[in-house]
Amino acid sequence: MVARKAERGRAARSSAAPVVENGAAPVITLTTDFGLVDPFVGIMKGVILGIAPAARIVDVTHGVPAQNVVAGAYALASAVRWFPRGSVHVAVVDPGVGTRRRALLVETADAWLLGPDNGLLSLAAPARAVRRIFDVSRSAVRLKPVSRTFHGRDVFAPVAAALANGVPPERLGRPLRSIHRLRQPIPRRRGGAVVGEVLWVDGFGNLATNLAPGELARAFRGGGLSITIAEHVVPFRPSYAGVPLGRPVAVVNSSDLVEIAVNGGSAAVRFDAGPGTAIEIRRG
Amino acid sequence: MVARKAERGRAARSSAAPVVENGAAPVITLTTDFGLVDPFVGIMKGVILGIAPAARIVDVTHGVPAQNVVAGAYALASAVRWFPRGSVHVAVVDPGVGTRRRALLVETADAWLLGPDNGLLSLAAPARAVRRIFDVSRSAVRLKPVSRTFHGRDVFAPVAAALANGVPPERLGRPLRSIHRLRQPIPRRRGGAVVGEVLWVDGFGNLATNLAPGELARAFRGGGLSITIAEHVVPFRPSYAGVPLGRPVAVVNSSDLVEIAVNGGSAAVRFDAGPGTAIEIRRG
Amino acid sequence: MVARKAERGRAARSSAAPVVENGAAPVITLTTDFGLVDPFVGIMKGVILGIAPAARIVDVTHGVPAQNVVAGAYALASAVRWFPRGSVHVAVVDPGVGTRRRALLVETADAWLLGPDNGLLSLAAPARAVRRIFDVSRSAVRLKPVSRTFHGRDVFAPVAAALANGVPPERLGRPLRSIHRLRQPIPRRRGGAVVGEVLWVDGFGNLATNLAPGELARAFRGGGLSITIAEHVVPFRPSYAGVPLGRPVAVVNSSDLVEIAVNGGSAAVRFDAGPGTAIEIRRG
Repeated sequence: MVARKAERGRAARSSAAPVVENGAAPVITLTTDFGLVDPFVGIMKGVILGIAPAARIVDVTHGVPAQNVVAGAYALASAVRWFPRGSVHVAVVDPGVGTRRRALLVETADAWLLGPDNGLLSLAAPARAVRRIFDVSRSAVRLKPVSRTFHGRDVFAPVAAALANGVPPERLGRPLRSIHRLRQPIPRRRGGAVVGEVLWVDGFGNLATNLAPGELARAFRGGGLSITIAEHVVPFRPSYAGVPLGRPVAVVNSSDLVEIAVNGGSAAVRFDAGPGTAIEIRRG
Repeated sequence: MVARKAERGRAARSSAAPVVENGAAPVITLTTDFGLVDPFVGIMKGVILGIAPAARIVDVTHGVPAQNVVAGAYALASAVRWFPRGSVHVAVVDPGVGTRRRALLVETADAWLLGPDNGLLSLAAPARAVRRIFDVSRSAVRLKPVSRTFHGRDVFAPVAAALANGVPPERLGRPLRSIHRLRQPIPRRRGGAVVGEVLWVDGFGNLATNLAPGELARAFRGGGLSITIAEHVVPFRPSYAGVPLGRPVAVVNSSDLVEIAVNGGSAAVRFDAGPGTAIEIRRG
Repeated sequence: MVARKAERGRAARSSAAPVVENGAAPVITLTTDFGLVDPFVGIMKGVILGIAPAARIVDVTHGVPAQNVVAGAYALASAVRWFPRGSVHVAVVDPGVGTRRRALLVETADAWLLGPDNGLLSLAAPARAVRRIFDVSRSAVRLKPVSRTFHGRDVFAPVAAALANGVPPERLGRPLRSIHRLRQPIPRRRGGAVVGEVLWVDGFGNLATNLAPGELARAFRGGGLSITIAEHVVPFRPSYAGVPLGRPVAVVNSSDLVEIAVNGGSAAVRFDAGPGTAIEIRRG
């Protein structure tokens, strides 16, 4: 699932710093698979506020499917660009917690990313945007003793809070040259078709795919397209309401990806679909 | 489901402004059917904090049943009056997103309300309390390009943030004279009885109805009342604990409406009841 | 389930005050069984921010199983110590709301605790840590009229906010000498074994027990241990990843208790286990 790869282009561009812009307190976001039933998320916030009392903490989601690193990476990447420049984004989907996997702090052109080195940060930190990388596994600010099962509390929360307080990142860990990267699902050509897949099922049952409209336009030179899921052909429309209630429709979603929906219903139920379900696009 | 109606009484009363009171940062609340699994709510907060760094953002609920405008209107109306005067309340339950439905900013005597013009704001903005109305669909502060499916992020979040920053509402949209209004479910007389219905099922399985105790007292001149749901007669008590564990009870809930509950259990399960289930009250 | 007991050791130690440390706004946490579907939690926040505009409000959890006071007490106790000293912790799991049960404000060595007097606060407020106790049922700052069903809004929120504003606790209620205490589930000896039980099932299906590693080490003098749940023997490992994917494992969790997990899966499902399920430990 993951591949190690040297990061490039770190030298020439500006950095995510300063953490604090126009006098406002720093923003720290949280993206996890912890859910909201347990006190884990609240505990992380308690640790952060104990160190950085002025931090403004925002939940991106705690509903990443348990231990699903790809889904967590997708959720994080879809959110980061909507936050103020220099925000600190903490992500914890961490099946390897307690093993020797590293804990990362990544500086990109726009943001600070914190999380385990299992690919979770890689979609939000494309190689061209990466500025600096640090291993914070043994950061001086981590809580001690570090538990075996909750590095969100013991490592990532205190490092995020220290960073929000203005501690320079080089004092929070040791430099690294690269991070683990997810092999992103890439649409494939098959005969005259492009075959993509479902990446994320949202709470309405809408199916976000890995198909970008621009790439499809290039692939098919702008001609009419026919979209098929589970042997159903679905029409492309500007909005959900472009079809009658109860009818399936393909739209461009708010992350600029092709999404299969049912107007007023659930496409996940209608097509018995989930992450990995194939979507076929052909000229039509 | 909705009816257009001229708003009245706008001239004589005070306005919701100023947004900021006693030096505190403005409060912006969010009420949606987005759920908490997807990053949508977090993304709206990111947009708001990028524009209005000092805003204090509070979730009312993101658990409105999908695309259920009546339930969303009830949740919003039940919450607004508990927030500081001048708070900005954003509500997004928006089956018509991407169509030509308008995006509203409504100023009432106490609050600012933002949401689609589909009746969602109408219970929180009774005609007598409405001061000014603006169409912010094409507000200068909206994010561009505006997506077809996520006006919460692209229209309502930036308008709320601008308002919180003190931008005058007349610079955020063009004046309107009226909004779509829900036909509110009104209890009906039938023979000697009053028949109401369930509006909202809370997380405990309690059934909030559209029956107000004051109106019932007037209708029956204060005599004893008999309450029937699903052919069961339920006693009226001051609190849940007025009946033994496991027994049904009618109480006045925290929104001053008649509520059917089961002490220590779920009335929704017991009576197989949900929104729309009939409640009959007679002298008894 | 509850036992009344005189509190001791109140005189000699320092108090939780001041609420506000190093110039930062006070932290108020919320722990309830309200869930996140209804607007109840948002309404409590609205009341708090209307009184204490600078308060920083953090959700510990609103997913305590409905009316499960033991689970709520466990969640609260596991979270409190991770928050800044002097934080105000509001907990509402309140089957007796509307009856004559008292509403408590408890000052411990580190924190302020607010909630019904049904044992909910007792695990977070061990007798040795209690400094002062107040009955705030009829506090001058409560909202009037006090509803029969929502003391979170009408009593606990305004008292928490007043405390966050620096109102002395003796002006918020009348002194008490003791609180109701839960009988904590204590591991029992049976033959050569120690028998504990599951206290909490987290969102991953991990089973937190009432077994503390230190006590087990003392009970068995540090020898090897054999852990049995539902007739399965489970190996003890430093982390989840100490066993192959899909295999059960016992670890020390982040609250320093023995936890039964399945690496990459759900122990609750695997062993059909929940609160109260027995765990047996013997020399092995």
